[in-house]
Amino acid sequence: MMLKGFLYPRTTRGRSSLLPAPPWHYSGEMLTIEYRTDPAKVAALLPEGLNPADEDPGAVALIWADWQSCSDTFEELVDPVRSQYKEAFVVVRCKWRDETWSRCLYIWVDKDFALVRGQHQGYPKKLGEMWMTRPVIVGRAGPRLEDGGRLGATLSAGGRRLAEAVVTLGKEVSTPGFVNGHPMLHNRWVPAIESDGRDALRELVTMAGYDAEVRDVWRGEADLAFFESPTEELSDLRPEEIIGGYFHRVGVSWRAGTTLERT
Amino acid sequence: MMLKGFLYPRTTRGRSSLLPAPPWHYSGEMLTIEYRTDPAKVAALLPEGLNPADEDPGAVALIWADWQSCSDTFEELVDPVRSQYKEAFVVVRCKWRDETWSRCLYIWVDKDFALVRGQHQGYPKKLGEMWMTRPVIVGRAGPRLEDGGRLGATLSAGGRRLAEAVVTLGKEVSTPGFVNGHPMLHNRWVPAIESDGRDALRELVTMAGYDAEVRDVWRGEADLAFFESPTEELSDLRPEEIIGGYFHRVGVSWRAGTTLERT
Amino acid sequence: MMLKGFLYPRTTRGRSSLLPAPPWHYSGEMLTIEYRTDPAKVAALLPEGLNPADEDPGAVALIWADWQSCSDTFEELVDPVRSQYKEAFVVVRCKWRDETWSRCLYIWVDKDFALVRGQHQGYPKKLGEMWMTRPVIVGRAGPRLEDGGRLGATLSAGGRRLAEAVVTLGKEVSTPGFVNGHPMLHNRWVPAIESDGRDALRELVTMAGYDAEVRDVWRGEADLAFFESPTEELSDLRPEEIIGGYFHRVGVSWRAGTTLERT
Amino acid sequence: MMLKGFLYPRTTRGRSSLLPAPPWHYSGEMLTIEYRTDPAKVAALLPEGLNPADEDPGAVALIWADWQSCSDTFEELVDPVRSQYKEAFVVVRCKWRDETWSRCLYIWVDKDFALVRGQHQGYPKKLGEMWMTRPVIVGRAGPRLEDGGRLGATLSAGGRRLAEAVVTLGKEVSTPGFVNGHPMLHNRWVPAIESDGRDALRELVTMAGYDAEVRDVWRGEADLAFFESPTEELSDLRPEEIIGGYFHRVGVSWRAGTTLERT
Repeated sequence: MMLKGFLYPRTTRGRSSLLPAPPWHYSGEMLTIEYRTDPAKVAALLPEGLNPADEDPGAVALIWADWQSCSDTFEELVDPVRSQYKEAFVVVRCKWRDETWSRCLYIWVDKDFALVRGQHQGYPKKLGEMWMTRPVIVGRAGPRLEDGGRLGATLSAGGRRLAEAVVTLGKEVSTPGFVNGHPMLHNRWVPAIESDGRDALRELVTMAGYDAEVRDVWRGEADLAFFESPTEELSDLRPEEIIGGYFHRVGVSWRAGTTLERT
Repeated sequence: MMLKGFLYPRTTRGRSSLLPAPPWHYSGEMLTIEYRTDPAKVAALLPEGLNPADEDPGAVALIWADWQSCSDTFEELVDPVRSQYKEAFVVVRCKWRDETWSRCLYIWVDKDFALVRGQHQGYPKKLGEMWMTRPVIVGRAGPRLEDGGRLGATLSAGGRRLAEAVVTLGKEVSTPGFVNGHPMLHNRWVPAIESDGRDALRELVTMAGYDAEVRDVWRGEADLAFFESPTEELSDLRPEEIIGGYFHRVGVSWRAGTTLERT
Repeated sequence: MMLKGFLYPRTTRGRSSLLPAPPWHYSGEMLTIEYRTDPAKVAALLPEGLNPADEDPGAVALIWADWQSCSDTFEELVDPVRSQYKEAFVVVRCKWRDETWSRCLYIWVDKDFALVRGQHQGYPKKLGEMWMTRPVIVGRAGPRLEDGGRLGATLSAGGRRLAEAVVTLGKEVSTPGFVNGHPMLHNRWVPAIESDGRDALRELVTMAGYDAEVRDVWRGEADLAFFESPTEELSDLRPEEIIGGYFHRVGVSWRAGTTLERT
Repeated sequence: MMLKGFLYPRTTRGRSSLLPAPPWHYSGEMLTIEYRTDPAKVAALLPEGLNPADEDPGAVALIWADWQSCSDTFEELVDPVRSQYKEAFVVVRCKWRDETWSRCLYIWVDKDFALVRGQHQGYPKKLGEMWMTRPVIVGRAGPRLEDGGRLGATLSAGGRRLAEAVVTLGKEVSTPGFVNGHPMLHNRWVPAIESDGRDALRELVTMAGYDAEVRDVWRGEADLAFFESPTEELSDLRPEEIIGGYFHRVGVSWRAGTTLERT
């Protein structure tokens, strides 16, 4: 039979696919902590062929995001178990073919559709548990977007706290940091089922969203702590110097990326 | 020893208490569907001594809420696993001593601190899984607060879908319905450990919040569906006529209630 | 109306009660680590009127349990989301009126029906995430009940790891420790809704199960580690000396307890 | 850098890989319901090139499994959040190149490491919530492996119940059904990041475990019900005739599969 479905399981009608076909639309809030770590620690996580960024090679962004997302049918928006999810991810910059790229080193997410969507885009997604303070406009149980407003964020996986951060807002600015601002440069690696060390798929890909809309960008001070886990190496990237913390709202859509190399 | 702690476990320092002492502050978003069911179905769920409301005795509000809450230390706000939770609850009105009261018949929540806080206030809280669309101001993945904006909400427990609703916004109004607008009239029942049918505690209590602040109240059309479960009777309250759907933001604080009767 | 239901919400038919009426039946596996802590740390957690045990007053049992439980209808057993749950709890001994009792200081559980059942029995239950190795009889992915078999257990709450333990089995024995072997002495405290420091219910209760059946009791070596959390004081009870680790299977039923004192 | 890790994220030390390298060892309990559906419904879910099995082409197995699994370091066994998981899956048979194969059409699992391990093996894994009665040897809260013992199993995803089953044991037998007994024939499909309808990887693979050890195989009667979901097509495979229900324990190891075709 001709089976339908962007992802598995593919079926006659295609309704079962774990991921609807693109485009995908996103609206959310992000909390970003930018900091510097030992540049050698970043370099050690770049695969062969990728090099450290020329400028500020130890710069890292740890980003929490609280999203709604949907397909072009928009049906997920009124069944929000299918549209809401949270994630936390680590972005660095690197150089490839004389250009500067952003690259996601680690990422945790709390829904399966978001995990496999990340795989499609080259994000190395695991499951985790993320929490992030939401700014409010009524009542006492949350910060306002104003000088002194404090937002916290935490990341856990496997019942272990991996990271926590607090951002104390200062003033409104125009851009939420610089580390996550380049086109993404990701690998898509699929090990051969022979499990012999070969990859059945080895791609270097890039991508960017479109129709990005940014609002309410605030910059402030940030505190950040990492904790140990037997299945993570996140704490190797410990901060030597905090650059700053950012809150912003963002809307963006995503349709496709580009394969740069297959090896 | 003199042990400290508003709730159990009480300890030397009191830090372990599952619930910090009041006051508690709340900021959140609510989605309310008001409808009429068979008044006999509401009357059947009122304990002896309580009577149906004189007006509109079959009116019911099914309410979803997406909260941040905190104690007077506000420390929970930057560790949001301790402040964020969602709930869904069913409110009706009743008459007692010639006054009209609101009363919560069923309620589900997704955190333990919120469950026991509900017990303190007389809310019959169970655990459930709630989802509720959030309005957005950027991007395509969410409704705006405007005519035609659609918000969905779902309730599940034990891996079974219990209810789902969609509200299509119409226009801004001044109040989000009338069913949940009176002081609450709740029972606090604690069965005797002898498990012999007696209650060790039987109270009729009332309470209300203070410093309520309401914003962005929208009224619209609503659809609502209930589903069966072997451990629930929610579907007995099925809608005969939808009154309306409401979105609003609310901030409120809570300090104490009043014991009306002990029997 | 005459409402029915052992616990809330009470309704016409009584099906909604979060907890079915007793008796309750339990079948499960337990992993126990017995150790000695500073006796002053145990004494500090006993309320006025209770005193340290005469013998071995610093003895503590940290117990993980992986349960199936059901009511006398047994219907929960074929809808196992309603019968399976895990818990971890800390038991010490104390003296009251010249007798020795067991007392649960802290306990975490992962289902709501088990949380409120604990409240009924005086256990100070919070929600947590527990994992415990299961012994197996086929394959390589688990220990056998034999000399050298290793079982691990972990406890987390709020995305923070609170405790972890490993027991290495030695030999079969007749009893799984001594700390949790006395009738339980618990407080049931319900704060007044006036939130003024008074309790509306203050009881000292005792209870024990019946028809206990114990199988496959093994004793061995144990390692135990506690971790910090802003909402817990568990790590105050850190081990100074490990007594031993135990695995056993147990079946038991529970019908009722006895109120010893109301104040 | 030379990065290490069987799966992503690949790092200097390789500890972060979401999946440890094979071999993987499994020990668990399985509940299988075999039944016949309309053969056209099975045929409709086979991709081009695969044909219905010659015999009993409408035969389906719906299988729940409650696993411990680990890598060759066995370290996951004492940190059981990394070894325990549950799954439910639908297996049919098909014909390819004149041989009969088993094929998994749908599968849900509750841990990320198990989800991506399934992807490696060609299983179309989504996240779900599974529960399955465990037989016991003490107490009243569970069936014995004996005539009349009843075991239930449920499957939910996205807060919706998808399937439930009850097996009433009859007698001990030698094999737990026939549908899942052939080498697996799976597709590994990875859509191109260009999102243009092409797949970057299209493989037909096969695999089988080794060192299988089976114990306690019981056969009995079975009831099975499917429920609707907007994101599933499971209920298309509704039973026309129940063949039987099975419980068994199984241990097995897995190292590698074979790529049969790349297109």
